[in-house]
Amino acid sequence: MSSTSSKVVDIHTHMYPPAYVELLESRKAIPLIRRFPGVKDPRYVILPAEAEALDKITSGSDTAPTNLPGRPITTHFSSLAQKLHFMDTHGIDISVISLANPWLDFVASESAGETAKSINTAFSEMCASAPGRLFFFATLPLTAPPETLVAAIGHIKGLKYCRGVILGTSGLGKGLDDASLVPVYRALAANRLTIFLHPHYGLPSEVWGPRATEEYGHVLPLALGFPMETTIAVARMFLAGVFDAVPELRMLLAHSGGTLPFLAGRIESCVAHDGHLVREGRVGPGRRTIWQVLKEQVYLDAVIYSEVGLKAAIDASGVDRLMFGTDHPFFPPLNSDEQGEWESMTWNKQAVSKALGADSEGARAVMGGNAVEVLRLYEEEQQAGDEA
Amino acid sequence: MSSTSSKVVDIHTHMYPPAYVELLESRKAIPLIRRFPGVKDPRYVILPAEAEALDKITSGSDTAPTNLPGRPITTHFSSLAQKLHFMDTHGIDISVISLANPWLDFVASESAGETAKSINTAFSEMCASAPGRLFFFATLPLTAPPETLVAAIGHIKGLKYCRGVILGTSGLGKGLDDASLVPVYRALAANRLTIFLHPHYGLPSEVWGPRATEEYGHVLPLALGFPMETTIAVARMFLAGVFDAVPELRMLLAHSGGTLPFLAGRIESCVAHDGHLVREGRVGPGRRTIWQVLKEQVYLDAVIYSEVGLKAAIDASGVDRLMFGTDHPFFPPLNSDEQGEWESMTWNKQAVSKALGADSEGARAVMGGNAVEVLRLYEEEQQAGDEA
Repeated sequence: MSSTSSKVVDIHTHMYPPAYVELLESRKAIPLIRRFPGVKDPRYVILPAEAEALDKITSGSDTAPTNLPGRPITTHFSSLAQKLHFMDTHGIDISVISLANPWLDFVASESAGETAKSINTAFSEMCASAPGRLFFFATLPLTAPPETLVAAIGHIKGLKYCRGVILGTSGLGKGLDDASLVPVYRALAANRLTIFLHPHYGLPSEVWGPRATEEYGHVLPLALGFPMETTIAVARMFLAGVFDAVPELRMLLAHSGGTLPFLAGRIESCVAHDGHLVREGRVGPGRRTIWQVLKEQVYLDAVIYSEVGLKAAIDASGVDRLMFGTDHPFFPPLNSDEQGEWESMTWNKQAVSKALGADSEGARAVMGGNAVEVLRLYEEEQQAGDEA
Repeated sequence: MSSTSSKVVDIHTHMYPPAYVELLESRKAIPLIRRFPGVKDPRYVILPAEAEALDKITSGSDTAPTNLPGRPITTHFSSLAQKLHFMDTHGIDISVISLANPWLDFVASESAGETAKSINTAFSEMCASAPGRLFFFATLPLTAPPETLVAAIGHIKGLKYCRGVILGTSGLGKGLDDASLVPVYRALAANRLTIFLHPHYGLPSEVWGPRATEEYGHVLPLALGFPMETTIAVARMFLAGVFDAVPELRMLLAHSGGTLPFLAGRIESCVAHDGHLVREGRVGPGRRTIWQVLKEQVYLDAVIYSEVGLKAAIDASGVDRLMFGTDHPFFPPLNSDEQGEWESMTWNKQAVSKALGADSEGARAVMGGNAVEVLRLYEEEQQAGDEA
């Protein structure tokens, strides 16, 4: 294996462990997983339109569906051997795996704590079975009562391969600028657990217009809704003062920050020119800017599929804060073998080479060096233990 | 005056001519302009929350408002002398003025044609009164019947200083990917009238969360909602095939394309990986990519307030497709004299210098050279006349 500094690390890569698949198979409302007789892979149904199609099949009013609803849950989603095969095929030394959206957002309050514990234990065991190759971001039981949430942080901070948590944008139901989340942010920061912020809900579907559902596939919600959701969530945290309140908070933002690097200048201008904020004295010398947040408290993944965006992300946060990722197992190749090379890997890798030069020091940092340093991807890691 | 190539041109700068102010003063529902006794500037009320505050004052239930609702319509909005003063203060040689949002979106169908004609005539006369200093983007009566809309294009194509139209994202009510708009795009393209695409509606307010209205001023809708709205509108046009259907269409996108340069890579990846689009054969060799649209059919203004975003815009579209703008009279300085220097000018100008080098060839192109060439900002311009 290559030296630490030239390791390739994938920090944006998802797994659905068997316990999560079973949970989704037991559900009657979306999100759910359904098996069909004679069809190899079960289907994962998450969108309302897909649920309607499923109802027609279940009720017998659609007896010969041309396309099964949802997306196939292939072995890429649930098999550790397949994950390791993907890594080997693409020269990835280490993966920091995480549960995919929508995590445990739909789980009832009373069972969320136990469910999170079983999922996080499953991730922990997966990592232990491939020592040195896998670390993970844990899942929080956000629908559970506060004491359960605190206990969950207590559990994950003791897990040897856990380096943070994956978090959606809904928080406890009111978004990430909810003041009730500040103690959670403090506990995570005190235990050096990085938040991997990931979108799921996108934007209200009306913004895509009347032609989207029939004609544009999933392009608009995925290509625009996802990064815009992330941007809005971080901007709300910024305006709420979360980054000031918890200076040790560290967040890794999916999809290179959504659109934050591109819009940071406009955010600063709108803050500085807002009569309401200026009158309230929230704008003035010494206040933390969004640029400071980008350079001091935020890391960005490099899942952006072009050097144009990647350069802007590097300009905004610094080459030492970008981390390569693939988004595997999403976006499988449609015109080639799923066991071969994925464009989601090659496009993002090419963007790094084009932006920084192939095999340059910067490219090596983005491809893995930063992740090893920032997330402490060493076997011998000692947990923070009793700091929180 | 300096040579053509080093002229400074502001292509994003708004005016409310007296006819438009009178129209807004006559209205009882938002958007409206209201005068208050003893208060110098009338107030422009556009948001539902501002309308509620206005109702309380009008009904007498709020007799001592601490803040008048809406924003002051200073002379910066309606006075040509003030516009010229702003230009002189900031070294702007030429301004391409346009009506500000929401244009004529609220005007009844039967009067929209006449209203547009009077507004466009007023702009035309303003430009003629300061020859060589002013050109304009006209306003279309989008709520009018189709024949009125066609007649309006016939009117504006004969106006000496008109170089295009300013357009919001609602189109005829169904967005800019509405197939009914294709003939309008064709007529504009045939007359070399550039579309200046500008946001107004932002995103549904629920995305800003429960704290936004009270605590975050107008930052989120303006800083994020505006550019996201623009991005969504262009992506919908792209997916609808508008740029293929009208290859001569030219669009100038406000705020450096919203977030399009940053998200273009993700858009391409989502298109290439969309099972629905691939099955329909809409994805394959030879299709026009969003990168081609950015480099061949789109221009971007440089109203982005930072070199990080500006560089990405240049990387995406080319240094010959960026055009400086100020967004005057919006975002006035809050801590200094409105007759002096505006940060909206200096921040955007500094971004150009930092991205391209002060006084470099590229900087001169972005600061004005591109606009002079692309929009034909010459006194002696011959109109296309009977081309359409």
